[in-house]
Amino acid sequence: MDKQESSNLKLFSLNSNKELANKISSHLNIPLGKATINHFSDGEIKITIDESIRGDEVYIIQSLSDPINTNIMELMIMVDAVRRTSAKSINVVIPYYSYSRSVNKSRSRQPIVVKMLASLFENAGVTRVITLDLHSPQIQGFFDIPVDHLKAEKLLAKHLEHHYDLSNSVVVSLDYDGVARARSFAGLINQTIAIIDNRDPNNLSNIPTSIIGDVNGKDVIVVDDIVDSGVKSIMSADVLKQHGAKSISIVSTHPVLSGNASEKIRNSKIDHVILTDSIYIPEAKMNDKLDVVSVSGLFAKAIKLINENKSVGHLFK
Amino acid sequence: MDKQESSNLKLFSLNSNKELANKISSHLNIPLGKATINHFSDGEIKITIDESIRGDEVYIIQSLSDPINTNIMELMIMVDAVRRTSAKSINVVIPYYSYSRSVNKSRSRQPIVVKMLASLFENAGVTRVITLDLHSPQIQGFFDIPVDHLKAEKLLAKHLEHHYDLSNSVVVSLDYDGVARARSFAGLINQTIAIIDNRDPNNLSNIPTSIIGDVNGKDVIVVDDIVDSGVKSIMSADVLKQHGAKSISIVSTHPVLSGNASEKIRNSKIDHVILTDSIYIPEAKMNDKLDVVSVSGLFAKAIKLINENKSVGHLFK
Amino acid sequence: MDKQESSNLKLFSLNSNKELANKISSHLNIPLGKATINHFSDGEIKITIDESIRGDEVYIIQSLSDPINTNIMELMIMVDAVRRTSAKSINVVIPYYSYSRSVNKSRSRQPIVVKMLASLFENAGVTRVITLDLHSPQIQGFFDIPVDHLKAEKLLAKHLEHHYDLSNSVVVSLDYDGVARARSFAGLINQTIAIIDNRDPNNLSNIPTSIIGDVNGKDVIVVDDIVDSGVKSIMSADVLKQHGAKSISIVSTHPVLSGNASEKIRNSKIDHVILTDSIYIPEAKMNDKLDVVSVSGLFAKAIKLINENKSVGHLFK
Amino acid sequence: MDKQESSNLKLFSLNSNKELANKISSHLNIPLGKATINHFSDGEIKITIDESIRGDEVYIIQSLSDPINTNIMELMIMVDAVRRTSAKSINVVIPYYSYSRSVNKSRSRQPIVVKMLASLFENAGVTRVITLDLHSPQIQGFFDIPVDHLKAEKLLAKHLEHHYDLSNSVVVSLDYDGVARARSFAGLINQTIAIIDNRDPNNLSNIPTSIIGDVNGKDVIVVDDIVDSGVKSIMSADVLKQHGAKSISIVSTHPVLSGNASEKIRNSKIDHVILTDSIYIPEAKMNDKLDVVSVSGLFAKAIKLINENKSVGHLFK
Amino acid sequence: MDKQESSNLKLFSLNSNKELANKISSHLNIPLGKATINHFSDGEIKITIDESIRGDEVYIIQSLSDPINTNIMELMIMVDAVRRTSAKSINVVIPYYSYSRSVNKSRSRQPIVVKMLASLFENAGVTRVITLDLHSPQIQGFFDIPVDHLKAEKLLAKHLEHHYDLSNSVVVSLDYDGVARARSFAGLINQTIAIIDNRDPNNLSNIPTSIIGDVNGKDVIVVDDIVDSGVKSIMSADVLKQHGAKSISIVSTHPVLSGNASEKIRNSKIDHVILTDSIYIPEAKMNDKLDVVSVSGLFAKAIKLINENKSVGHLFK
Amino acid sequence: MDKQESSNLKLFSLNSNKELANKISSHLNIPLGKATINHFSDGEIKITIDESIRGDEVYIIQSLSDPINTNIMELMIMVDAVRRTSAKSINVVIPYYSYSRSVNKSRSRQPIVVKMLASLFENAGVTRVITLDLHSPQIQGFFDIPVDHLKAEKLLAKHLEHHYDLSNSVVVSLDYDGVARARSFAGLINQTIAIIDNRDPNNLSNIPTSIIGDVNGKDVIVVDDIVDSGVKSIMSADVLKQHGAKSISIVSTHPVLSGNASEKIRNSKIDHVILTDSIYIPEAKMNDKLDVVSVSGLFAKAIKLINENKSVGHLFK
Repeated sequence: MDKQESSNLKLFSLNSNKELANKISSHLNIPLGKATINHFSDGEIKITIDESIRGDEVYIIQSLSDPINTNIMELMIMVDAVRRTSAKSINVVIPYYSYSRSVNKSRSRQPIVVKMLASLFENAGVTRVITLDLHSPQIQGFFDIPVDHLKAEKLLAKHLEHHYDLSNSVVVSLDYDGVARARSFAGLINQTIAIIDNRDPNNLSNIPTSIIGDVNGKDVIVVDDIVDSGVKSIMSADVLKQHGAKSISIVSTHPVLSGNASEKIRNSKIDHVILTDSIYIPEAKMNDKLDVVSVSGLFAKAIKLINENKSVGHLFK
Repeated sequence: MDKQESSNLKLFSLNSNKELANKISSHLNIPLGKATINHFSDGEIKITIDESIRGDEVYIIQSLSDPINTNIMELMIMVDAVRRTSAKSINVVIPYYSYSRSVNKSRSRQPIVVKMLASLFENAGVTRVITLDLHSPQIQGFFDIPVDHLKAEKLLAKHLEHHYDLSNSVVVSLDYDGVARARSFAGLINQTIAIIDNRDPNNLSNIPTSIIGDVNGKDVIVVDDIVDSGVKSIMSADVLKQHGAKSISIVSTHPVLSGNASEKIRNSKIDHVILTDSIYIPEAKMNDKLDVVSVSGLFAKAIKLINENKSVGHLFK
Repeated sequence: MDKQESSNLKLFSLNSNKELANKISSHLNIPLGKATINHFSDGEIKITIDESIRGDEVYIIQSLSDPINTNIMELMIMVDAVRRTSAKSINVVIPYYSYSRSVNKSRSRQPIVVKMLASLFENAGVTRVITLDLHSPQIQGFFDIPVDHLKAEKLLAKHLEHHYDLSNSVVVSLDYDGVARARSFAGLINQTIAIIDNRDPNNLSNIPTSIIGDVNGKDVIVVDDIVDSGVKSIMSADVLKQHGAKSISIVSTHPVLSGNASEKIRNSKIDHVILTDSIYIPEAKMNDKLDVVSVSGLFAKAIKLINENKSVGHLFK
Repeated sequence: MDKQESSNLKLFSLNSNKELANKISSHLNIPLGKATINHFSDGEIKITIDESIRGDEVYIIQSLSDPINTNIMELMIMVDAVRRTSAKSINVVIPYYSYSRSVNKSRSRQPIVVKMLASLFENAGVTRVITLDLHSPQIQGFFDIPVDHLKAEKLLAKHLEHHYDLSNSVVVSLDYDGVARARSFAGLINQTIAIIDNRDPNNLSNIPTSIIGDVNGKDVIVVDDIVDSGVKSIMSADVLKQHGAKSISIVSTHPVLSGNASEKIRNSKIDHVILTDSIYIPEAKMNDKLDVVSVSGLFAKAIKLINENKSVGHLFK
Repeated sequence: MDKQESSNLKLFSLNSNKELANKISSHLNIPLGKATINHFSDGEIKITIDESIRGDEVYIIQSLSDPINTNIMELMIMVDAVRRTSAKSINVVIPYYSYSRSVNKSRSRQPIVVKMLASLFENAGVTRVITLDLHSPQIQGFFDIPVDHLKAEKLLAKHLEHHYDLSNSVVVSLDYDGVARARSFAGLINQTIAIIDNRDPNNLSNIPTSIIGDVNGKDVIVVDDIVDSGVKSIMSADVLKQHGAKSISIVSTHPVLSGNASEKIRNSKIDHVILTDSIYIPEAKMNDKLDVVSVSGLFAKAIKLINENKSVGHLFK
Repeated sequence: MDKQESSNLKLFSLNSNKELANKISSHLNIPLGKATINHFSDGEIKITIDESIRGDEVYIIQSLSDPINTNIMELMIMVDAVRRTSAKSINVVIPYYSYSRSVNKSRSRQPIVVKMLASLFENAGVTRVITLDLHSPQIQGFFDIPVDHLKAEKLLAKHLEHHYDLSNSVVVSLDYDGVARARSFAGLINQTIAIIDNRDPNNLSNIPTSIIGDVNGKDVIVVDDIVDSGVKSIMSADVLKQHGAKSISIVSTHPVLSGNASEKIRNSKIDHVILTDSIYIPEAKMNDKLDVVSVSGLFAKAIKLINENKSVGHLFK
């Protein structure tokens, strides 16, 4: 990055995913900005930015992962601090955007949290959001400010091609809603797709029953966006094995891995879980089946292009 | 409706669907409010409200059907007139909400028109939106004001049960995206479902190829939300016939019927198209295959409950 | 224009007046930006901007002429697309601003459309409006964003001096409201003025009756801002002829020419109508009496000065 | 006024025109609300509302007369106090709305104060404005909240018919801009009009020169909206006398009477000035030529109708 | 409470202080509204309101105590749910308002969290805030919506008079900033005050050194607003004992009691700590020295008065 | 100041403190911008900016001193003029910010004027506020735009060290609220502090009674922020003399000097009053005891640093 152009780009990391922030910082060859973030024993958060950012383009990196609500408030407080210091722009980099699965009121008298978060960020003075693989792309429409919605699928596809044998594989969607995602991924690695059927209108719990397409003797690549409790993937793996799948790999962007998901996966019929570092996976949750691909380069490239006023369109697809 | 409670409910119809508005008015036993709407030869619209609405709960009925942009502006201008007259609330009743299929930016540098419309209505002073079968339920999240999202499926299901022989039928979804809708409808009429397959990742034009589930010898009920050009339904009918379907009925809420869709349907393998009057179908577009169910009672019930501050939750599902 | 300074100026034309946009583009020596604008058969508009405009100063040219409401929506949709692409500024160039004659509520329970449009543009993210000869200059006050209100009178005056014999002429106002405009124009070409009298308080239809000042044997130059149906001009021409006018020329900025105005003018006692190209006049409406002066140079100069942060004050008067 | 309906109407007077407020209070049979308004020696204003107004419809009466800026701030501060006390609505009654003559930027780099005031009131939480004879009716469009624009002309016309001999009179407009107002007033009292001519394009100072129509031997009624310095009226009186006017009466709503206007009028050829009490005229400025008609009944009627949610349309014209 | 008047008051409790909410509910004789609040294992909160609240005045009770950020988000999500259900008003009852001590930027580049929270609540649609003993009364000015700022001092004073021997007591302020609070409390129980001196400009850590006024042989009543870590109170107790205090009671509204504050107090020279239940004190933190006075009656009375549109001014002081 | 960097900084002075503005202009070596400000005899203010400021960083200097309300309106009108001229930023420099003592509602039904002013400025388009020694630093939190809060204490301390003999002095706070300010000032000049005691809970009028600390034989330096009526300082001087003070100097930033404060001070036991020129002191109010230190250099430095996007943090303390 040319010095003159990037001179006023300031990069800050909050607490949720410092590992990713450090990698982005290395890619950009820009040190992380200095800020003091204290969590006091009464539960209050206090932030002080320890260097001048007047007139700068500020990028704040924070995943909205567990503890979700504290991480949201930490981000909001940081944004308020930046706003009061006359930065030129406030760009929030949100590798994992939580609450994105509750995108619509399934019943009356429910909140739409993900929209509420969008309003919070806009009202607080955020001028741009850079995020990754939203559960629903419609969430972009909840904002009136520009949103850069990056996609990890190319990165994950390339990783699979380099490190896995795809000569006898098939891409599988866990349900009908995921067919578009599976089809797109299958196109990238030139494979056909199969679908786990749960068509029965009385099948309210969406328990996988049969499979559309052939998985017998194949290396199955299940494509999903979030691995949360892991229950659905594990149950699907059982069905796939019953239908003759040779091996089962899950490819998914966001490693939420709530509760003892990691342990359950280790004990399941799943062979590999290919994930990104959009959420930090603590040591205790790591195991041999997990294979983590870094999205730091992708975010660094996006930040660099945005700062140089260049198009990031090719990073979207 | 008790006089004391409904005394200040005022119902206005704009130009897009006066037939539906008249029926709603009859159901509620409340006459349509007096307003003069002129379209001048230079293209300008002029509206004057011809009765006092100070302190009233105003409901304005307007489908955003073709001519879409003129109908949107007519609604906006009416809302502005109402706002300047100190009505207590401005409720817009939008049986068909256009632009709802372009709900997310598929590419960069595209607008999100449906979100823009939501902002227009909110900024103009609309206090509530009452609508029907949005193409994407996420659109509710584009608003910060209350949205009542009615559903026609129960009405359509009951109509089918009364007027069609469902003893040997199957519900069909035109693609994977429509499975949830088809499954819900199949549950209402106690039928199984089948799906038209377009799984192939290279099948970019979504041409129907094969069918998952059995349609042979069955009376097929295809469930969709909008019949626009009719092309997809007609192509699907061909495939269904090839797979042995005995008869083909399309069940869909919104009769957009753009271009010569009506004529193409009449000449197709489709036997019946069951639609609602969310959009007015002009005489010239009517034909024997079209069977129109009125949603006027549904809207009247919703307006009555809202005005009495009662829950409309059961009309949502 | 110096390359470094103008490098980030992007000029887009929508559909209402591509002819004028092309001329402005030529004057500025900047090609029109690439954008795809589709009008679908169901009435929806879809716009995609086909080049990067991140960080650019964007100018969108659109007259709000017939079909007025579609042109307004086209502009709104384009503005939304630009806003979501992080342009530096969104400048809308509106050569003809419709709805400007209904500037105040003449009765209660009427909208103020022209104010509503101002609010729409501001809420959509427009940062500046550049327009021409508003029917009421008060419309500027409806905006909180900067408005550049250009005037065509100098251009028109110069055109008259070069192409018409003004040696025996008089400037005429069609009514008392137009006296200020007529007086200003008369000052530019060093002529006296006359006024068509409609003083009678019972003269509700404003039918011209008598004339204040002398038009006998003179080449009359009637000054107006909009030629819409042409009725008033034609009736006035009759009266002027009765009072001995030798020839009659109408000078007016905006050629609305609604309905068969063009034909009626051709058949009237009017000799010349000098207009600008603020609104595109289709071939079918052109005739020998119409003389069109281009405002493209005026707009190009304004855009250039604005982009260089120079004063445009001298273009206002 | 029925007790149940008016029970929650609260009327407050600020300092600019307590006389008018007291009369409105008498007409409505509602005492003025208790509030303490202190102006301290350092120039600060402190207001305390001394009775509960929670849930009430609050009406605040304040003319924006000299000292204009202090009166504006007094109103703003009162509105803020009311807003923080959860009143149901905040209605400001502004008999004289200053800054209304500078309605449009005549040059670039000028403020539009009257629009700024509208924004101030809206942002402060005002829910409705009730005002009288705005210099430009377009000012209504500067608001997005409802504006009731009352007119004094009927009241003034009736006063003239009862107290003056109109058998040989003519209505005169001081310039072309005032013709519409004069014509409307002449219609009310069944008279013809005349106009003071200032048609000459080089007549920049608008000095009256000749007269269109016949005033010879007539009792002239000059119609205007504001009597400020009185200079224009006095100069016009001279011209009217030169043309044979028998007597000269000025009819005008707002008695601004700045500087020594009152004295100058007393020494002029003007015989009567019929004014309203929209602005308080201090004892020192009163003289025999001034004849004041109260608008208290008009405002009381408007407030009563608004509070009962009835139409006030007939008070507009 | 009269049934007709209170019929539409709905009271909801979130998770931070259900004990207080239940007591308020009992005082008002209104059951708590039904709502399901789930905290999922990935950290997301999901709320569904299980009864109709359309047209109702909704009161939501939530202390912003530890876990502060989760409690804030729980409140925000509930407010969003209520907003989308067309309640008539959204009143948030916040017995303890956290982040209130960081009311001003002591250094540049720091956020003003308490202001940010005010903006969050306003933007989310909150229409009124009811709170208790804000650390700085200026916080009211951070809101544009009405704030009812209740005070516990009368309640606490009455409690002391009934349960403690005040015949030989003195009220003490911990520092100069607290003098106004101490003086007000001393007035209520008719006692004199003393002040712990920390006047030395080099005394940056505010360690208490000497005492202004006489405490020798007296029952000391230290007045504060928040007991957080307890360190300052404990250190002050040592100094007071050194100056001959006979007994030491701390009177304070908010029992933050962070970390092991409760245990430290039990082991200190403090004899009694009189607190309110503005924050729930878990069993494990209770001990013999803590004496809790309920503010449930105070809040119930405020809610009742607000709902009846009566003045709550006397509860402020 | 480097020409390239400062080329687009424009400095304007309004009427309240032209003397200070001229000095700031000299320090910055930038001439004051040309603007015409007229106050008409009817009380209206008219402003025209007489040079192009398109794209410029505009700084407007105006103290909100007496006549406070006129000065506020003058500022608001100027801001509106600048906003309509597309300046890049609107920075208001407010050396004295009035209404800052009424920072919180001491009773219900009172406005919070200082918050209202903050909202006025923000809504009018102000992008930054630069001010000096706010009575309450919490006022910064009333803004969402950046506020630079300068402090005069270092300047005043340095002035005292150069022009006064501090060898036998003590710093005194007039009451407990002022201890923090006094302690900070005492630290700068290395002195101890004393406090005037008004601890008695029945002492509602805050009459000084006794003194904490030793002033006998000392040169007393009383530290305050505003000298308004002077009453409190004068009464305190009497008490200090009674306790043996050798001389009494008041050090205070803002010379409000309302009414005959100046004369009363001249006749009092006060020896010196060291003030700044944040408010212009007219000739008639000057006397030998007043010693004025200019803050022009402080403001000039702040403006320069802000314009160069450098940190001004060190000017805050």
